[in-house]
Amino acid sequence: MRKESRLVRWIWWIVVVTALFFLGFVIGWFSRPTHPNTENHKPSSKYLKEFLDEMQTEKIREHLRKFTHLPHLAGTEQNLKYAEQIKNEWQEFGLDSVEMVPYDVLLSYPNKSQPNYISIVDHIGNEVFKTSLAEPVPQGYEDIPNIVPPYSAFSAKGQPEGDLVYVNYGRTEDFFQLERQMGINVTGKIVIVRYGKIFRGNKVKNAILAGAKGIIMFSDPADYWAAEVQPYPDGWNLPGGGAQRGNVLNLNGAGDPLTPGYPAKEYTHRFSLEDGVGLPKIPVHPIGFHDAIHLLKNMGGEIPPNNWKGALNVSYMIGPGFTDDFKSQKVRMNIYTNNQVTRIYNVIGRIRGALEPDRYVILGGHRDAWVFGGIDPMSGAAVVHETVRSAGRLLSKGEILDMTSPEEGEDGVSLYDSWHKRDNWTNDRDAPRISKLGSGSDFEAYFIRLGIAAGRARYTKNKKTERYSSYPVYHSVYETFEIVEKFYDPSFRRLRAVAQVRGGLIFLLADSQLLPLDVNQYADSLRKYAQSIAQLAQKNPNEMETYGVSFDSLFSAVENFTVAATDFHERLEILNTADPLQVRIMNDQLMYLERAFIDPLGLPGRPFYRHVIFAPSSHNKYAGESFPGIYDALFDIENSADPEKAWEEVKRQISIAAFTVNAAAMTLTPPA
Amino acid sequence: MRKESRLVRWIWWIVVVTALFFLGFVIGWFSRPTHPNTENHKPSSKYLKEFLDEMQTEKIREHLRKFTHLPHLAGTEQNLKYAEQIKNEWQEFGLDSVEMVPYDVLLSYPNKSQPNYISIVDHIGNEVFKTSLAEPVPQGYEDIPNIVPPYSAFSAKGQPEGDLVYVNYGRTEDFFQLERQMGINVTGKIVIVRYGKIFRGNKVKNAILAGAKGIIMFSDPADYWAAEVQPYPDGWNLPGGGAQRGNVLNLNGAGDPLTPGYPAKEYTHRFSLEDGVGLPKIPVHPIGFHDAIHLLKNMGGEIPPNNWKGALNVSYMIGPGFTDDFKSQKVRMNIYTNNQVTRIYNVIGRIRGALEPDRYVILGGHRDAWVFGGIDPMSGAAVVHETVRSAGRLLSKGEILDMTSPEEGEDGVSLYDSWHKRDNWTNDRDAPRISKLGSGSDFEAYFIRLGIAAGRARYTKNKKTERYSSYPVYHSVYETFEIVEKFYDPSFRRLRAVAQVRGGLIFLLADSQLLPLDVNQYADSLRKYAQSIAQLAQKNPNEMETYGVSFDSLFSAVENFTVAATDFHERLEILNTADPLQVRIMNDQLMYLERAFIDPLGLPGRPFYRHVIFAPSSHNKYAGESFPGIYDALFDIENSADPEKAWEEVKRQISIAAFTVNAAAMTLTPPA
Repeated sequence: MRKESRLVRWIWWIVVVTALFFLGFVIGWFSRPTHPNTENHKPSSKYLKEFLDEMQTEKIREHLRKFTHLPHLAGTEQNLKYAEQIKNEWQEFGLDSVEMVPYDVLLSYPNKSQPNYISIVDHIGNEVFKTSLAEPVPQGYEDIPNIVPPYSAFSAKGQPEGDLVYVNYGRTEDFFQLERQMGINVTGKIVIVRYGKIFRGNKVKNAILAGAKGIIMFSDPADYWAAEVQPYPDGWNLPGGGAQRGNVLNLNGAGDPLTPGYPAKEYTHRFSLEDGVGLPKIPVHPIGFHDAIHLLKNMGGEIPPNNWKGALNVSYMIGPGFTDDFKSQKVRMNIYTNNQVTRIYNVIGRIRGALEPDRYVILGGHRDAWVFGGIDPMSGAAVVHETVRSAGRLLSKGEILDMTSPEEGEDGVSLYDSWHKRDNWTNDRDAPRISKLGSGSDFEAYFIRLGIAAGRARYTKNKKTERYSSYPVYHSVYETFEIVEKFYDPSFRRLRAVAQVRGGLIFLLADSQLLPLDVNQYADSLRKYAQSIAQLAQKNPNEMETYGVSFDSLFSAVENFTVAATDFHERLEILNTADPLQVRIMNDQLMYLERAFIDPLGLPGRPFYRHVIFAPSSHNKYAGESFPGIYDALFDIENSADPEKAWEEVKRQISIAAFTVNAAAMTLTPPA
Repeated sequence: MRKESRLVRWIWWIVVVTALFFLGFVIGWFSRPTHPNTENHKPSSKYLKEFLDEMQTEKIREHLRKFTHLPHLAGTEQNLKYAEQIKNEWQEFGLDSVEMVPYDVLLSYPNKSQPNYISIVDHIGNEVFKTSLAEPVPQGYEDIPNIVPPYSAFSAKGQPEGDLVYVNYGRTEDFFQLERQMGINVTGKIVIVRYGKIFRGNKVKNAILAGAKGIIMFSDPADYWAAEVQPYPDGWNLPGGGAQRGNVLNLNGAGDPLTPGYPAKEYTHRFSLEDGVGLPKIPVHPIGFHDAIHLLKNMGGEIPPNNWKGALNVSYMIGPGFTDDFKSQKVRMNIYTNNQVTRIYNVIGRIRGALEPDRYVILGGHRDAWVFGGIDPMSGAAVVHETVRSAGRLLSKGEILDMTSPEEGEDGVSLYDSWHKRDNWTNDRDAPRISKLGSGSDFEAYFIRLGIAAGRARYTKNKKTERYSSYPVYHSVYETFEIVEKFYDPSFRRLRAVAQVRGGLIFLLADSQLLPLDVNQYADSLRKYAQSIAQLAQKNPNEMETYGVSFDSLFSAVENFTVAATDFHERLEILNTADPLQVRIMNDQLMYLERAFIDPLGLPGRPFYRHVIFAPSSHNKYAGESFPGIYDALFDIENSADPEKAWEEVKRQISIAAFTVNAAAMTLTPPA
């Protein structure tokens, strides 16, 4: 369960992916005793306990097992079969309704009769080296059909040939360094980048902007290898023959590339492939580190800075091209991948709310996998499945704290304390850390485009101690059921803990009379974010003065928000909770607060990223930034030929942020 | 009370104009007897009657008298004084709260020391004719200061000189005819257009697109003169020395030109004038028909088509330039108008709702006038003022059918029947006509940008029998109190009828337990609109076939909407109205239906016009079109160099319309 979304991620607005299956828990939250509809409302905590206790490790194991037997890439028959199976089981579990909803989206598949590969060709055109056409298949899966070989989905087709340039992670700052400090121009070259740090689509975009005619991505052990761990199947590291699949689109939330902003229904107008959004114009291909060694070992040219060196036994010379001995050799990419509009299905199950069925709490994730999807996405899907099963049990009885740590040796330790111990906020406060939501996953459309309050809860690595990017076998054929069963969660207690946390969240959101949201915390965060972005700008104190850049309006807005938040919670204290209308009015204010941070005009150049407080920067889809509009404007300062104009944009973004925070504060004030 | 908005109209999102004063009526609509808060709820109709009966013609006369004594252009001291007076009176009337809210918007004023005018210059540069610098001031107003002379607000400065070309109304089709049939290119020419048919800003835009370097607008008696009526002060026709002021912006709903999309607060970032939205790049000036005769009488060149001829005693020759005898004479515009950011104020009064204070009904209009504003806007402001006074009376008592015609000789005739008789729908149904809302007035931001259900109610001319554009003295100095008192509404019963209709509407919207909206009527209208736009497309049956253009998806969506609407009203019939939550849920669906027609991406090229069903076309801001996206795409067909691409855009717009109508239908379905 990495931050990144797969093929499907980019198709969101109407639940774009192959399989954004989601479950609407709709339970009214009023329990006013005198209200005619609430006569039978019993104490919630009992039900919650029952709901969470019903979740079983063995069941989660079963769900994961049965949905990881076969590859189920988006748009394939097997992924449809799993959808139907999930639909049937949800019906058996007792949901009020379950339906499958089709969309026709642009997907990308390798050409079965013309495999993709990269070669080294000598001066007379002979291919003296070719990368592998597939990953070595793990034991027990040898006869399984339809394992798609590693590829970069939505790559352009083509056979570019030329000299190689190594560009580290392919970040904006890497290309700056390459061009400004090393004086290397990659126009007409093929670049090779290592995976990690930022979303691969951003690497591809940067390579295109720099003029490259092809881009090769490899998994370096420095980024995909944990110390003292064996490669799969003896451990959970990525074997040298394994490679990371993944889409290389730059959608910025547009959804389906051919129907940006609209649902990809049968009748929807589709742009031509040339006019599609976010499709790269150059060939892209991923390889494992065994193959990477062959491409890198004879590289010549510039000596790399130390932080450009990975963990392979090569020099990481930058190029362009090979050393003198091999100077006549070139690299050729052979990419035949096809894009095609393909039907996919969402599975949507619902539990109708008793009192306010027009209010929804959504739990979901995608179903499609690059191969078996042992971790991504099926560990998440198994958790959703178990949550649905348990909710169904509760429904059938007409009934559900405190959770404990699933870790060995932590008997009696609460999950909260276990989490707190492992990942403390430290600088900020003494509490378990909650990261800003970035993107690259299924919540994107809900949160960043629509302003629907969203979150994710997962077991993941400790970022402070584990230095590899993502998890090593990410998007490879080695993401199997067995890697979970043997290494990641043998007892399935961690996945149960995730199911219980998610289940508890949706239960409380759906069942609490007053939404369990604390607006004061939003105010605290806004203040910290404002301080942080103002500090970033203060790197340029002279320009700040020259161009009259001030954050006063933003701090003033944050102050207004803080006062409004405090007042709101004071009114909440004295609310007549016996009056359902008054309760609903306050809940509406809580629920719609997130919406108030949406700017209908979107962030600059990104009409589908509209959240003024939280969005990824333009430079890395994975990472959440606060005040992303200001952040990007500041980022652009150093790259701008016209500093006055660039600082004007900073000022514009500050005023937009100030207005938005002021407007959000107004939504918290009492109706006048 | 014309369709058009003035200076202020364009500044809307946060009530941009000088004086969008508005009154929030907030009265909860639930009357559930068992509900603790509704114990004192008495029958509404009694209060409504009392509310409407309290409205007095003599009071409306008083309001109009006191607010039309002095010119009160947007941004002037006098307009601020009126604002303060209104605020004080509303407080005396008994509103719960009244406040003044400032904005700093771009306004435009003539240069006091360098007046604007147009001249004819001979071959040695002598000005042989100059247009008048002001209108003859009506009797009784001779000593009044600060009467702004006729000007085109936001005109560019400049002294262009050249040959004149007469371009009829300056509509898109007029320029087509000029260029394609007459072969006249206006590049580098000054064009002269008559007012009428379309918004003046559209004329200016068309002239700029055609390459003109200046544009003169005049009021032709054919368009501003009613038969058998005397010019003011003996009648209500426009004197020959009178001219129509007005802004010439092309904002498409952007609001303040320097802060498009954001409220023009002190801290808001402002674009430079060069980057401002909608500001014309050429000088523009309005004149009366006395002056127009001098410019037109010696025109040479092409003979005009018959429908280009106005009612002046000139030939309406098209030019370019004058006849042989006067060929060496040129026309020169002398325009010194300045744009400046200026503080304006909204007056906002509120009555707090008893049960659901978070729901608002807004009544409003602007306060600023080009001069005295006898009709536009103060007749509307007087009506709002009287509505507020009456509502205050009702409030003070702790209390308010059927209205009658205000017309002479219609004693005992209902207002409805009087209206029905004067303006029947005829083709469509046997009922009084309700026109589509266009734009050019203060509801624009609410309705077309935000999707808040909106309407206007006014006494106006009969479009079938009265052929002049707008009303003759529109935006001239002759819009006085006396023109209303002597000619338009001597008894002030018509204005009282308007106050009662508006008051009744807001009362019923605020007080009804269920919102008095009929979704089935929306369905009927959608069907008619779909049929109508499909018929328009069918003008090109061959292209429809060639490019595979079909309206099936739209008709299917309308059918879905129709079914959803019928079902909705059936559920409304059996609703348990004793359950306030169930009532609020249904009211939410009714209230938010209009919002469902908003496309967050906006209409093509017009991000602030976002209503998919109702918006002005790109060619005339005044007139409301249905399915404006499809309409504009079809309009562009004949002007496109690439018909395939143009038809693709039609198809795209059809699919957007179909999606939007389908989505709106979904909002009417029962919560699942």
